Amino acid sequence: MSSQKNILIVGTGGVGAVFGSRFQYAGARVSVVCRSNFNKVKESGFTIRSLKFGNTVFVPDCVISAKNDQAFDSVFYDYVFVSTKSLPNVENPALAILPFINSPDTIIVLLQNGIGVEDPFSILFPNNPILSCVVRVNSTQIEPSIIQHGTLCCLLYNFYTSLKSPKFSDTILKEFDAFLKLAKVESIISPNIQKERWLKLAWNAAFGSISVLSGGKDGKSLAEDIYTCTLMRDTMREVFAVGHAVLSEPLVDGSIEESIESYVSLVLTRPNAVYPSMLYDYQFKRPMEHQVIIKNPIDLAEKAKVSTPLLKTLYALLISIEGGRL
Amino acid sequence: MSSQKNILIVGTGGVGAVFGSRFQYAGARVSVVCRSNFNKVKESGFTIRSLKFGNTVFVPDCVISAKNDQAFDSVFYDYVFVSTKSLPNVENPALAILPFINSPDTIIVLLQNGIGVEDPFSILFPNNPILSCVVRVNSTQIEPSIIQHGTLCCLLYNFYTSLKSPKFSDTILKEFDAFLKLAKVESIISPNIQKERWLKLAWNAAFGSISVLSGGKDGKSLAEDIYTCTLMRDTMREVFAVGHAVLSEPLVDGSIEESIESYVSLVLTRPNAVYPSMLYDYQFKRPMEHQVIIKNPIDLAEKAKVSTPLLKTLYALLISIEGGRL
Repeated sequence: MSSQKNILIVGTGGVGAVFGSRFQYAGARVSVVCRSNFNKVKESGFTIRSLKFGNTVFVPDCVISAKNDQAFDSVFYDYVFVSTKSLPNVENPALAILPFINSPDTIIVLLQNGIGVEDPFSILFPNNPILSCVVRVNSTQIEPSIIQHGTLCCLLYNFYTSLKSPKFSDTILKEFDAFLKLAKVESIISPNIQKERWLKLAWNAAFGSISVLSGGKDGKSLAEDIYTCTLMRDTMREVFAVGHAVLSEPLVDGSIEESIESYVSLVLTRPNAVYPSMLYDYQFKRPMEHQVIIKNPIDLAEKAKVSTPLLKTLYALLISIEGGRL
Repeated sequence: MSSQKNILIVGTGGVGAVFGSRFQYAGARVSVVCRSNFNKVKESGFTIRSLKFGNTVFVPDCVISAKNDQAFDSVFYDYVFVSTKSLPNVENPALAILPFINSPDTIIVLLQNGIGVEDPFSILFPNNPILSCVVRVNSTQIEPSIIQHGTLCCLLYNFYTSLKSPKFSDTILKEFDAFLKLAKVESIISPNIQKERWLKLAWNAAFGSISVLSGGKDGKSLAEDIYTCTLMRDTMREVFAVGHAVLSEPLVDGSIEESIESYVSLVLTRPNAVYPSMLYDYQFKRPMEHQVIIKNPIDLAEKAKVSTPLLKTLYALLISIEGGRL
């Protein structure tokens, strides 16, 4: 086995493409699995317009079509990155990588938002190390294979599981950290990655669902309206309470109100309107990620006996309007 | 003054037209104020297709245009019935009858849904008796001046105000009761009309707002979906709690759960899909009655220190989607 890292990226929208480009820059052989943008990427790779890294063309070493799911691969991948949407209510997300995992040494790296996204992978691949990540990359695929990227490129991560078998060793974390640094990706080994996931969820759950249900408002408009801003704050408070109960510790050391305030301030001071991916999904009549962003937290809250009237309301309305569209 | 009753009906949709027809049948002189259906009604009256009363044409004694608001009237009306929508957030609803009230003896009869609908009238006409009603009439204006009516025709009512001045006497109630009976309208003098209003509101608040926010589902579909049905039940529970606190007594003698169950059963066993007026208003880009149906109850709940997370959520989303449409 050559020392060159062999990497697969499944789901190459804005996030997957930027990471793929960085990993190739760091010397890895990078394969990508594409769905809607397959033809474009196969033809001419990704055009990446990045404020952080400059304008580049990223031509993957191998482009695989997601539709050709018989394409079992005999290649050994050091890392399989999953940056598809997480839709366990539609299909088992772990099946997307089944053709590509032929060794327990392949490290599965999950870049998805939400709570409980790791479960389908840990069930299907119980012997593989799974790295659960919180992604901070402000990139979008503005048209198939054309990626607009800002200045953020950061991964927070740690193992999914408290199990500290030898395989789930610090060596894996150190190697991954070194590789990310080589790729000029900011690397943060989080002492409590689930806490980070809940912190990100507080924003995603409130912003995504309320944007869709309010008729398609951007974050700034929602924050400027007293009623929707109050609703966003109340929803975030609910998520903080659930996360606290599920993890048996507060999500932040300081004041929850200050955290919520910082989310709201951030969106109020942004120069441009920012829309959540859930709204794009709704507008383009694609399934929304309401399972991992709202329903899984509600289910965990019930087990922890925490009341979630707002999350339940938003969920009921979201699946109802989705049902009339899909 | 002749003994013939002189009646004005302001707002002649399905409800106003059916009552007008009945009052003329009972021997009254009936004038109507029309908005969108003025030309049609002026030309040929109302065609009323009623399962209860048979098919009739109701030609009002006088048809007044709502747009001609300079038309101050020197006629004395015994009763002014108000069956317009209640939109205090858009305009003062009491102004619609200002040209027609020239005596403190005119009895104002409010047929509108919601809480606090009487306030604008009691402020503008502090000396007139105001009868607050809960209307049970299943009629719809299927096209301008064409009314479809089922089998219900009932009014529950009593004075708005606890003030028992001589003018607000039992004589007024008795006369009104006798007149309704003559008109073959079922007449129920309610010992606690505000309680009846809250009971009706429990359904209206839940059904109207959730129908709109769920993408336009009818009552039966909402009740058949476990998530939206749970949301409707929870919303009704909230309204019951607010009404209880505001009136300082429970809305029903028995179990709240049984009352909620009866609302849900009723809608589940209906042969046809039934849609709330709030949905029609939303679909036709007209203002919705969210002020009197949701916001006023929220404000009263705050004063009574009752928590209303669901009503607040529904309200925030409703005014947000309305803002993008009107």
